[in-house]
Amino acid sequence: MDYKQRQRRLQGLLEPSHLDALLVTHLPNIRYLCGFSGSAGALIVTEERCVFLTDGRYTEQARDEVKGAKVNVLSKSPLAGAADWLRENRRTLGRKRLGVEATHLCVADHGGLKKNLGSSFHLRPAPALMERMRMVKDAEEIACIRSAVMLGAGLLDRALQTIRAGVSETEVAAEMEYTARQRGADGMSFDTIVASGPRSARPHGRASSSPIPPKGFVVCDFGVILAGYCSDMTRTVHVGSPARADQDLYEAVRDAQHAAVQAVRPGISVAEVDQSARSVLKKRGLGRYFTHSTGHGVGLEIHEPPRIAVGHNEVLQPGMVITIEPGAYVAGRGGVRIEDMVLVVEGGCEVLTPSPKELITI
Amino acid sequence: MDYKQRQRRLQGLLEPSHLDALLVTHLPNIRYLCGFSGSAGALIVTEERCVFLTDGRYTEQARDEVKGAKVNVLSKSPLAGAADWLRENRRTLGRKRLGVEATHLCVADHGGLKKNLGSSFHLRPAPALMERMRMVKDAEEIACIRSAVMLGAGLLDRALQTIRAGVSETEVAAEMEYTARQRGADGMSFDTIVASGPRSARPHGRASSSPIPPKGFVVCDFGVILAGYCSDMTRTVHVGSPARADQDLYEAVRDAQHAAVQAVRPGISVAEVDQSARSVLKKRGLGRYFTHSTGHGVGLEIHEPPRIAVGHNEVLQPGMVITIEPGAYVAGRGGVRIEDMVLVVEGGCEVLTPSPKELITI
Repeated sequence: MDYKQRQRRLQGLLEPSHLDALLVTHLPNIRYLCGFSGSAGALIVTEERCVFLTDGRYTEQARDEVKGAKVNVLSKSPLAGAADWLRENRRTLGRKRLGVEATHLCVADHGGLKKNLGSSFHLRPAPALMERMRMVKDAEEIACIRSAVMLGAGLLDRALQTIRAGVSETEVAAEMEYTARQRGADGMSFDTIVASGPRSARPHGRASSSPIPPKGFVVCDFGVILAGYCSDMTRTVHVGSPARADQDLYEAVRDAQHAAVQAVRPGISVAEVDQSARSVLKKRGLGRYFTHSTGHGVGLEIHEPPRIAVGHNEVLQPGMVITIEPGAYVAGRGGVRIEDMVLVVEGGCEVLTPSPKELITI
Repeated sequence: MDYKQRQRRLQGLLEPSHLDALLVTHLPNIRYLCGFSGSAGALIVTEERCVFLTDGRYTEQARDEVKGAKVNVLSKSPLAGAADWLRENRRTLGRKRLGVEATHLCVADHGGLKKNLGSSFHLRPAPALMERMRMVKDAEEIACIRSAVMLGAGLLDRALQTIRAGVSETEVAAEMEYTARQRGADGMSFDTIVASGPRSARPHGRASSSPIPPKGFVVCDFGVILAGYCSDMTRTVHVGSPARADQDLYEAVRDAQHAAVQAVRPGISVAEVDQSARSVLKKRGLGRYFTHSTGHGVGLEIHEPPRIAVGHNEVLQPGMVITIEPGAYVAGRGGVRIEDMVLVVEGGCEVLTPSPKELITI
């Protein structure tokens, strides 16, 4: 990854954002900017410099991973260390306008920082500079995401081999996660969802010890982390022969998913993409069963901007990677969700997830 | 779990904390108070009432899980919904002093809440009421933790069967995680650390694709989540016959760990416990290689208060569950860490982790 270039881009955004420095505390943003993948760090970015602060547990890792930033290893918290550095270097920091990541810094840390820095600094919630940069993936990131998606998609076969009536949901998840690890995943990108029978009506039904019932849907929503990048996909299969109404439910969700994928192109708003899925379900009388948004960005984090949802006005751009995942959930009966990851490209999108979407009966 | 009793305890703490309501947004605190285990929710606790807010993805799950609180399912974010509820019920809320969880609420959400609530509410950083309650585990929690610890400890055997020169660290992690899932774990409580050879000198060396070298330490630090509760343990083994200096390093850490465990009892400060481990390593000239704190609380979260560290003044009480995990890390050579979970009981402590601590050579 070209960390230097990312740092330079961010440095170029400071003055237009009326900031003399940005204090980056959100770990995925730190990783994006300088490569550090540990769990404790802070990065100070000024127009001229990048300084990374961590604690003694990460001495070696920081030395190996961090690119383009001076590494300071401290015997105090990275945030307290950042305050020290800022105080010591305040003369070089112009008007001392310090941006903080308001959506990632807690009220207590903000208060501590304010106290540590004293009145000479002006703390400001920074605009979402990092989030905007990270929304559009560069070529190296897209390559990483492709690899993660392919590894993730391969787990569906393992799920299909394992799913049958009487097997517990966690057994299915165990087999998928084991396969992911064997194939080199860093781990799963979120708690694997295997939701069977009536539990399939829970959009976020983490795999439980429940046995898969003899008949009904099984929603499998899962993803891996590979080289730091996340994958995310959902397929819904049916155990036993589906009733006509269940076939219809499946087809409606599949059509909604297809419509939203067809809508994805540069220049369209996320709300319009959401609407294209939602209107298909509405037309079939299923609108009220689609209880979540249509998708979200994916990258170093499993949920990133943009949200593909009503009331959001982000416009898609080439290089964005988002999920398209409508669903319909009928309490007591069951639910269906189908999810792909797609890459926005000139004129449309490329569906990254290779797996078929016909209803599979087990 | 007796959620009602926990809610009543918290309600009894509101007036002494000069609060008319507490807005609980930290998910483990929500789970502790009302049982909800999903990923989106807020809980408003007033002297008389508990109101839980979530979104449409969790309709069924909230109905099943939430105890003692009224459930409101919203088409907006739980935080925005909480603001609505508070505004609508403001007449019942005395002086409208609203406590927020300052260590868990981000600056942006705090700002949004302030704006949503208007000037009639007084937002205050609440004291660490929940953290203090959760530090001392009740009997049901201790039973859950015991089960998690036993399941976790069982994974060491699987690690020992897998570790050998040439096998990758991730393969070892994969086998351990698979076994955990097969035995019913919800998942792992953190990224499994398998750090071999020179990588063992990284206290937080997540399993990598590196093959285990023919000679050297392998630090295995791992834990499971079972019924929501975390386990955490570390054992260090040696591949090949250890040099005398490595044996000495191991023995020093083992003695330090033993000394700290011996120190654990009600009434002792966490700094003293830390010191008992640290002084053993100092005496052997290894003080500077012990680069982290001695331990931390464990429960619904893998890292909870208290921290067992220099400069902290928490005093241990019966019912606290903490880790004791000194280590020594020599860059370029290797590292050793040994970690147990212990339960503070009258007069001392009970070591929950059953695994032996003699140096195992593979």
